[in-house]
Amino acid sequence: KTLFPVSFETITPDTVLKAYHDIRATTMNLTMPLETEDYVIQSCPEASPPKWHLAHTTWFFETFILQPFCDTYRPEQDAYRMLFNSYYEQVGPYFPRDRRGTLSRPTVQDIIHYRQKVDDQITQWIPRLSMPLFSRIAELIGWGLHHEQQHQELLMMDILANFAANPLFPAYQDNPSTWESLTISPWQWLEIPEGITFLGYEGTGFSYDNEKPRHKVWLTPARIANRTVTNHEFLEFILDGGYQNPTLWLSDGWHWLLDHHWQHPRYWHQIDGEWFEFTLLGLLPLQLNAPVVHLSYYEADAFARWRGGRLPTEAEWEWAATHLPITASNFLESQIFHPEPVIGPLNTMLATLGGVWEWTQSPYAPYPGYHAPKGALGEYNGKFMNGQYVLRGGCALTPQSHIRTTYRNFFSPESTWAFSGLRLAGDVQ
Amino acid sequence: KTLFPVSFETITPDTVLKAYHDIRATTMNLTMPLETEDYVIQSCPEASPPKWHLAHTTWFFETFILQPFCDTYRPEQDAYRMLFNSYYEQVGPYFPRDRRGTLSRPTVQDIIHYRQKVDDQITQWIPRLSMPLFSRIAELIGWGLHHEQQHQELLMMDILANFAANPLFPAYQDNPSTWESLTISPWQWLEIPEGITFLGYEGTGFSYDNEKPRHKVWLTPARIANRTVTNHEFLEFILDGGYQNPTLWLSDGWHWLLDHHWQHPRYWHQIDGEWFEFTLLGLLPLQLNAPVVHLSYYEADAFARWRGGRLPTEAEWEWAATHLPITASNFLESQIFHPEPVIGPLNTMLATLGGVWEWTQSPYAPYPGYHAPKGALGEYNGKFMNGQYVLRGGCALTPQSHIRTTYRNFFSPESTWAFSGLRLAGDVQ
Amino acid sequence: KTLFPVSFETITPDTVLKAYHDIRATTMNLTMPLETEDYVIQSCPEASPPKWHLAHTTWFFETFILQPFCDTYRPEQDAYRMLFNSYYEQVGPYFPRDRRGTLSRPTVQDIIHYRQKVDDQITQWIPRLSMPLFSRIAELIGWGLHHEQQHQELLMMDILANFAANPLFPAYQDNPSTWESLTISPWQWLEIPEGITFLGYEGTGFSYDNEKPRHKVWLTPARIANRTVTNHEFLEFILDGGYQNPTLWLSDGWHWLLDHHWQHPRYWHQIDGEWFEFTLLGLLPLQLNAPVVHLSYYEADAFARWRGGRLPTEAEWEWAATHLPITASNFLESQIFHPEPVIGPLNTMLATLGGVWEWTQSPYAPYPGYHAPKGALGEYNGKFMNGQYVLRGGCALTPQSHIRTTYRNFFSPESTWAFSGLRLAGDVQ
Amino acid sequence: KTLFPVSFETITPDTVLKAYHDIRATTMNLTMPLETEDYVIQSCPEASPPKWHLAHTTWFFETFILQPFCDTYRPEQDAYRMLFNSYYEQVGPYFPRDRRGTLSRPTVQDIIHYRQKVDDQITQWIPRLSMPLFSRIAELIGWGLHHEQQHQELLMMDILANFAANPLFPAYQDNPSTWESLTISPWQWLEIPEGITFLGYEGTGFSYDNEKPRHKVWLTPARIANRTVTNHEFLEFILDGGYQNPTLWLSDGWHWLLDHHWQHPRYWHQIDGEWFEFTLLGLLPLQLNAPVVHLSYYEADAFARWRGGRLPTEAEWEWAATHLPITASNFLESQIFHPEPVIGPLNTMLATLGGVWEWTQSPYAPYPGYHAPKGALGEYNGKFMNGQYVLRGGCALTPQSHIRTTYRNFFSPESTWAFSGLRLAGDVQ
Ligand SMILES: [Fe+3]
Ligand SMILES: [Fe+3]
Ligand SMILES: [Fe+3]
Ligand SMILES: [Fe+3]
Repeated sequence: KTLFPVSFETITPDTVLKAYHDIRATTMNLTMPLETEDYVIQSCPEASPPKWHLAHTTWFFETFILQPFCDTYRPEQDAYRMLFNSYYEQVGPYFPRDRRGTLSRPTVQDIIHYRQKVDDQITQWIPRLSMPLFSRIAELIGWGLHHEQQHQELLMMDILANFAANPLFPAYQDNPSTWESLTISPWQWLEIPEGITFLGYEGTGFSYDNEKPRHKVWLTPARIANRTVTNHEFLEFILDGGYQNPTLWLSDGWHWLLDHHWQHPRYWHQIDGEWFEFTLLGLLPLQLNAPVVHLSYYEADAFARWRGGRLPTEAEWEWAATHLPITASNFLESQIFHPEPVIGPLNTMLATLGGVWEWTQSPYAPYPGYHAPKGALGEYNGKFMNGQYVLRGGCALTPQSHIRTTYRNFFSPESTWAFSGLRLAGDVQ
Repeated sequence: KTLFPVSFETITPDTVLKAYHDIRATTMNLTMPLETEDYVIQSCPEASPPKWHLAHTTWFFETFILQPFCDTYRPEQDAYRMLFNSYYEQVGPYFPRDRRGTLSRPTVQDIIHYRQKVDDQITQWIPRLSMPLFSRIAELIGWGLHHEQQHQELLMMDILANFAANPLFPAYQDNPSTWESLTISPWQWLEIPEGITFLGYEGTGFSYDNEKPRHKVWLTPARIANRTVTNHEFLEFILDGGYQNPTLWLSDGWHWLLDHHWQHPRYWHQIDGEWFEFTLLGLLPLQLNAPVVHLSYYEADAFARWRGGRLPTEAEWEWAATHLPITASNFLESQIFHPEPVIGPLNTMLATLGGVWEWTQSPYAPYPGYHAPKGALGEYNGKFMNGQYVLRGGCALTPQSHIRTTYRNFFSPESTWAFSGLRLAGDVQ
Repeated sequence: KTLFPVSFETITPDTVLKAYHDIRATTMNLTMPLETEDYVIQSCPEASPPKWHLAHTTWFFETFILQPFCDTYRPEQDAYRMLFNSYYEQVGPYFPRDRRGTLSRPTVQDIIHYRQKVDDQITQWIPRLSMPLFSRIAELIGWGLHHEQQHQELLMMDILANFAANPLFPAYQDNPSTWESLTISPWQWLEIPEGITFLGYEGTGFSYDNEKPRHKVWLTPARIANRTVTNHEFLEFILDGGYQNPTLWLSDGWHWLLDHHWQHPRYWHQIDGEWFEFTLLGLLPLQLNAPVVHLSYYEADAFARWRGGRLPTEAEWEWAATHLPITASNFLESQIFHPEPVIGPLNTMLATLGGVWEWTQSPYAPYPGYHAPKGALGEYNGKFMNGQYVLRGGCALTPQSHIRTTYRNFFSPESTWAFSGLRLAGDVQ
Repeated sequence: KTLFPVSFETITPDTVLKAYHDIRATTMNLTMPLETEDYVIQSCPEASPPKWHLAHTTWFFETFILQPFCDTYRPEQDAYRMLFNSYYEQVGPYFPRDRRGTLSRPTVQDIIHYRQKVDDQITQWIPRLSMPLFSRIAELIGWGLHHEQQHQELLMMDILANFAANPLFPAYQDNPSTWESLTISPWQWLEIPEGITFLGYEGTGFSYDNEKPRHKVWLTPARIANRTVTNHEFLEFILDGGYQNPTLWLSDGWHWLLDHHWQHPRYWHQIDGEWFEFTLLGLLPLQLNAPVVHLSYYEADAFARWRGGRLPTEAEWEWAATHLPITASNFLESQIFHPEPVIGPLNTMLATLGGVWEWTQSPYAPYPGYHAPKGALGEYNGKFMNGQYVLRGGCALTPQSHIRTTYRNFFSPESTWAFSGLRLAGDVQ
């Protein structure tokens, strides 16, 4: 399932515009439950205000497509070039990330107007393009749409972070049901054989530069779990003193834990002895069978050590996702906004895509032969290749058409605001 | 001009409710130019979101009047007790001040509803009160209304701080005109004789506890300027290298300047060699004849030293405001939202009230015999009596009925977000 | 008791040099118990390494006397001008205060050599001076010697702070005895009448600029305690929950307490239920009858509020020290290095000088008509007149010849590394 | 060249004790040029005072050998267990790393006494051990000696950091000569072929746990430079605006540069237009032909990008160090204390060992199948495997018998206080 046909024989202005309108509309639909006030706030430096996401994704089309290629386009506001630039040094100065929540203007309506203006321009302009400009523009539109899909997920993560900081515990969406009664698949090891494998994307569809080039890697024999870790399993770690035992943790993780008084995952609450989790569906009793989520790398790594395992490498994960039968868990399209309990056939990599992002033990680094694209879009991925770990597989907030088995997400090891969980791996003696 | 007749012979439920409705309506009127988004943000720790002011002033009536005295009142929301408590330890926990801008809920509409509910309750309940409960309640209502007037000024200060942090430079109100052509009164020394004077409030009207008791002070002979310092005069200080010369500054001030890269007052901008000032009326060319405003104590003190003078003491200021002919400058009611140039008769303390708050050299300290009131309202003033300096006279954002010549405002010496200027004083050799 | 005869009829090179050699030798004697390593460290930003004090006091004579007035003098090292400048902007750049403990060079021996060189030069040069240059130099030598006496106290405070940060609890001096058995004087109020009094120094002896000019002040009737507060009395405050009760504290003090986890005075330790105090004599069982010491202003103020009193003003303290019979407690010369229990006749201001510095409620501010001296020495006191409180009376580390009843010491309200205690005052109803 | 024969047939108490005494004596010899004061200071959090290194290396033998295995041993001081524990959670609490410079006691003499006591005990005890206890102890002694060698290098790095923070620029050792006239080898690419290679240590000698297990890795074809980058080459980067061009830097590196005002390598100084470098030999004119040293990963990475290359991976470096002819540069034994210019035969990996540590692009991560040793020594390496990059080859401060081609050193990417330089690598198209 892809955004639009990537074969350049079949791609047309219509297919491009259909994808464009679909994805742009999806973003707006996600904001439907928000009050105007909800669009403005930024409860922590890593989250951005919802209205910033609406503007920045529009700025992307304006800055990288309309301004360089469409002669008749006039920018909505000169100041937007700086205000909605996230980090592109080659575009110019950018407003400080941790100050985005201090801006009341432009208003939500102003930004909706801005979106409309850019959408109108794109809609009118695309059909008039000559080949080969259309090819180039279609490629950039594709990039912009994948970018917008990434921000759909970020938008939802940030709404959750913002609501979680409010003592009133606002819910993004009413909780139609709980999953407590659901069964889950039993835990199983799947074998990964020794040998050469290939890592990375190769094909004619869209992929980010950081997934390339496809290259050979030697796999040491190993094994990987059939499913992700549950709240139940993580609760055992807590009850066994996991957050009090420094020998389970990386040194940096342990000191981070002490400095930030970590005693449980970010959105868990213990109230009168009962465990709850704050979610986009409000504050719910902890769903024991649901995957544990919002773990930092440090917590995932400590849990794995406690269980006698380890996190998988990227190569192990990608081999398993490619060579074993897999199933998917829920995506953004499910509109559940929280990972579902995992159930499926034996001997299968369950919930490989969707559900929760899975921390790998692989630091985010360039693949052999990697080169960042020329120009400002080269800053999209390459300059962040240090100090972070790769996560794989997407989550309940990821659009299904956005994710691939070669997709590399990355966060710094203390990050907890993403939908990040884990799947165990282990060595073979 | 007072809020309502303070003589307890003439005070009635009607006079109380009239004042109540007037002041509550004024607050709401001040927010009329705001977009919903503007109510939410907090651009610096010292400023609060406008909607927080709307809620907190309501909370004051709820917490200190309705909850203890009105049996039938049910709080709007339990969490509001904490969310809108500014700092009253005796009321219970309070939400961190510097995090107020992270809350999108309650929404502006929720808060307007909250205001309405409390207003309705007050309106229905006051007329039914028996004496002497009515006397006690009237006194507390008076306190709550003066509190709300203080927050009217804070609301406007905070709107300015928020808009000033936005590169789009939004204006709160269109600027109907400039004052560049206006003349101002020439600068003059007024003499203060040696001897005993009285400091502090005594009378039957409202005053804060920190203005009492009225007490004797010995005045050393001195002199005080007839008017406040202008932008023109302050610009000379800048052009003479005032911000580069450590010998003019207090040591703490100089290090603050270095750490914060101060080169001019907070809202001044130099653009292509021309000076501008950001105001509630937008970004205006610097009005040379208008009073300089948004000075820290450090800047006011350094300017005074450079001019060969000093800041007045509280006692000098209050003596002059009491014993010399005085005039007023503009107040909140003028709806100009910026201090006007000062003009008036010779040998007069011009613009003594209104215009700009005037830094004194007096640290904020209790008057001899001061006792904080019993109960949580004792925390209103007394616990802040350290590390700050007294300012006198009110400003263009202060309601006229709120200010008195005995009124003591106070800010820490690095503060610049208030409408703070200065009037020179000097020793007599 | 003064440093040298101040009458300019009787002052001679011999009297000046005798005082010079005495005081310079006293400084060196104070360092006798130190190991070389002890001279180097700086355990907190406010304390300086002992060797820095040795060098800086020498630098003072070099910079303010020898360099400007003695043609033949060649500075020991150009870099010393910056390294040992504490904060004089008019002298030039200064090494950051909080980095003084990062310098191993110059070594202790280098600095002793530096002291010797300056001492030799002074010794040879003073007798050869013509009048009136001698008068001017004698005045500056006097200033430099008072400066060195101040640093004798700072040196001892800093040694204590450094040793206190070491888990080995090194003692500066063995403890010859304890004072547990000593009785102390019972607590008594002394009356302060209403009326005009004089504040400040006037006379022919040495005083700092901040003690002048002598001026009139109006005293409101009040009362003041005959002695300082004891450890026993302060322990009652602790046991009554004083450190857990925000209503006793200034707001800034309470938040400082929370941020720094204060539960008792700086050098108290509770070990297996018993109270100890770390002192220059090592870790001792808490001496209940000794004065409480190392209090911040916040703690002194909270204690006074808890006891139903308040801190005295400077004017009250100085009136009592001048108009009532007084006694002194121990000074530096006693070589006890800790305040002794207070005992003495009834109706007397006991331990007015020596023992512990006494916090007043008076913010450190210029006296009416104050002018800082011209030149760099004008930075000695004047530029620190904000954000601090005045302490009076000297302490067990203050040289007796250094202190006066008009002497104004000052620290910021959170400071605890000085020998600071308190004497209660109260209003008269 | 190894510390002592590792074959357990030939190892004897004599060989063990000879190595022990040699290495312990080397440490003391390195401190010969120090003044007592130099042992005490800590100019930055990452550096430790020299006397701490002397004590901590002794503590290692006391804690991991004498206390658990030698019944008759009594610890020197109970508090040393905490004071000289660097970070071993399983040993118990440890004194904060960034506060080590606040401790004057124990003195240098106390610590020399402590070293002597432990050395005496080891010397007397080792010959009396029965097999197989001797085997176990010999292994631990080996570990302790490699640990001490690591600290010899750290000791020298920290002395340099401390001296560099002193405006007097003290030299550790006089500079016997400069290298300006020396020629260096021309720059050359060496080819790395595609295929499987082995990474990691396997053999009977000593190696750290992080070098194991030896495992297969697939190499993509690449090339690697024959020598490390010189000051001359790095100066070209500076002159070309390398420190002003964000597109050359990782995002984290660029923001670190801005926050810390980096304009050149840590110890470079530009004085009157001339470049100097502060070294253990004092402040020297920049030696253009010497290797650039004290680079952060960020600077090394930016330089490589500017030159059109990249940093090598661990696997590339280790393949080249194993399969190509190599030469060594100077080690600690040379007593030059600074990397020498590199000269040697063509087609050779020059200065592979010694000279400067070489940043690789490989994040410090466990090898496949890695398991940390049981017990507290398992904390030696494993818990630091995040957020750092691997460096290879040792430097001019590394003892020759300490280094191996499989040796993995690691620092965080902003670190500059090690002797870290770089060797370029590149892709093969
Ligand atoms: Fe983006
Ligand atoms: Fe308030
Ligand atoms: Fe000094
Ligand atoms: Fe170590």
